[in-house]
Amino acid sequence: MRFFEKLNDVLEHKGCVCVGLDTDPRKIPHTLRLEKDPVLSFNRKIIEATADLVCAYKLNFAFYEAAGARGWELLKKTVDGIPGGIITIADAKRGDIGNTARMYADAIFKELGFDCATVNAYMGLDAVEPFIESPEHGTFVLCLTSNPTAADFQTRISEGIPLYEAVARKVLDWNKQNNCGVVIGASRIAEMKRIRELSGDLPFLVPGVGAQGGSLEDVLMAARVFDRANVLVNASRSVLYSSEGEDFADAARREVLEMKRQEKVTLDKL
Amino acid sequence: MRFFEKLNDVLEHKGCVCVGLDTDPRKIPHTLRLEKDPVLSFNRKIIEATADLVCAYKLNFAFYEAAGARGWELLKKTVDGIPGGIITIADAKRGDIGNTARMYADAIFKELGFDCATVNAYMGLDAVEPFIESPEHGTFVLCLTSNPTAADFQTRISEGIPLYEAVARKVLDWNKQNNCGVVIGASRIAEMKRIRELSGDLPFLVPGVGAQGGSLEDVLMAARVFDRANVLVNASRSVLYSSEGEDFADAARREVLEMKRQEKVTLDKL
Repeated sequence: MRFFEKLNDVLEHKGCVCVGLDTDPRKIPHTLRLEKDPVLSFNRKIIEATADLVCAYKLNFAFYEAAGARGWELLKKTVDGIPGGIITIADAKRGDIGNTARMYADAIFKELGFDCATVNAYMGLDAVEPFIESPEHGTFVLCLTSNPTAADFQTRISEGIPLYEAVARKVLDWNKQNNCGVVIGASRIAEMKRIRELSGDLPFLVPGVGAQGGSLEDVLMAARVFDRANVLVNASRSVLYSSEGEDFADAARREVLEMKRQEKVTLDKL
Repeated sequence: MRFFEKLNDVLEHKGCVCVGLDTDPRKIPHTLRLEKDPVLSFNRKIIEATADLVCAYKLNFAFYEAAGARGWELLKKTVDGIPGGIITIADAKRGDIGNTARMYADAIFKELGFDCATVNAYMGLDAVEPFIESPEHGTFVLCLTSNPTAADFQTRISEGIPLYEAVARKVLDWNKQNNCGVVIGASRIAEMKRIRELSGDLPFLVPGVGAQGGSLEDVLMAARVFDRANVLVNASRSVLYSSEGEDFADAARREVLEMKRQEKVTLDKL
């Protein structure tokens, strides 16, 4: 199935909420710590409690790589346990060229089996090409982030426009198979509106809602094209660690339901 | 031991040649393919044949990640087998922020035990900080690469200077503990001279000599400060696959010796 069909379908039917499985072993409830695989048990219970509500799960590779080879096994087992129809995002921000970029794409799409990945395009199209050549897989290119030092490079004015806008414009060029998108931090509301103006209905992956302080309503008002679902809003910590107790999965579900309530209220206004 | 002391020491005594262990299982000589761990056997024989000659080994993570968890084991076993005193470079080009960047740094320095890493600084200092906060570890920030689409962003003029120069200038600011360097592709001779002019004796990691066509003499003439060893010149395929036969390790050694001969001839001219 083509990536954009799968993405459109799930966004249309399940809305914008993406849960980030950035599972920190030190934050897992005590009740799970005696299990053989606490991170895997935790992930599976979060997925079980939220899979009917979300459009996507995003796995932040750093949290798994910190455990080495063992972490890569958890990555694979977690993604294997995500029900069909839900988009799986490898948040690995890879960026290299030639046969190296190809190997990274193979690792993510073939070895691990993700639907799409985040990519850093500092090296240009060469770094992105192997990720977008099959229409069955998609890529979200890092565009504008919420961290303070994003100003070091991303917002520098470059040939009349901010660098992040140059990135967004290139992504539009590269989007010949409708399988590209951009990553924009949830606090970047004004810039998000601007990028929406120039990018038609290009999908946005927006991290930073919840623990990082971004507002879901502001994001949807800035980024959603009124009759098209084209924004994935990611929350990680606010969902995963909503409760430290045995009820963590129920608490995660409540948190996602609250996001969906906010989504509905906002869409009713559009 | 501080990273810059270890680096200076090995560059001074062993010269500029770095070997890239970008081991492609499909290119390993047939004689090794029946072994339990062909990639590991290959890497160990290459290391055995060249360790007395090189300043560093650079491991390109993509080649290992393509094999999943198994690949991460090979990464760890390979780096564990590199003799002390030689710099180990995690060529992973990671780039993320906050606790994610910290996890990536932990994966590379603590879990795998590398001396230094390559980092993509598109997200600014936030992406680099966890990699440079300990003086025992170093980081080479991606600056200017040799691939054709580097022009998509790296060479764009930004506030009066090319973006790659803005990156080099930031790296100089960040280099408070003498543990930063930059990555510059071997074909970028004119730009390399320019970055050397503005960066004092900042270490350069220069990939792209050998199979990718860059000239070691040109690189040293452009990048070396005459009385200081501050350039690591990486060759991968030209060393690893110099022979397809059983004599691959001897052939790799001959290839490194030829690079060292070229280094000596060039330095005699300086």
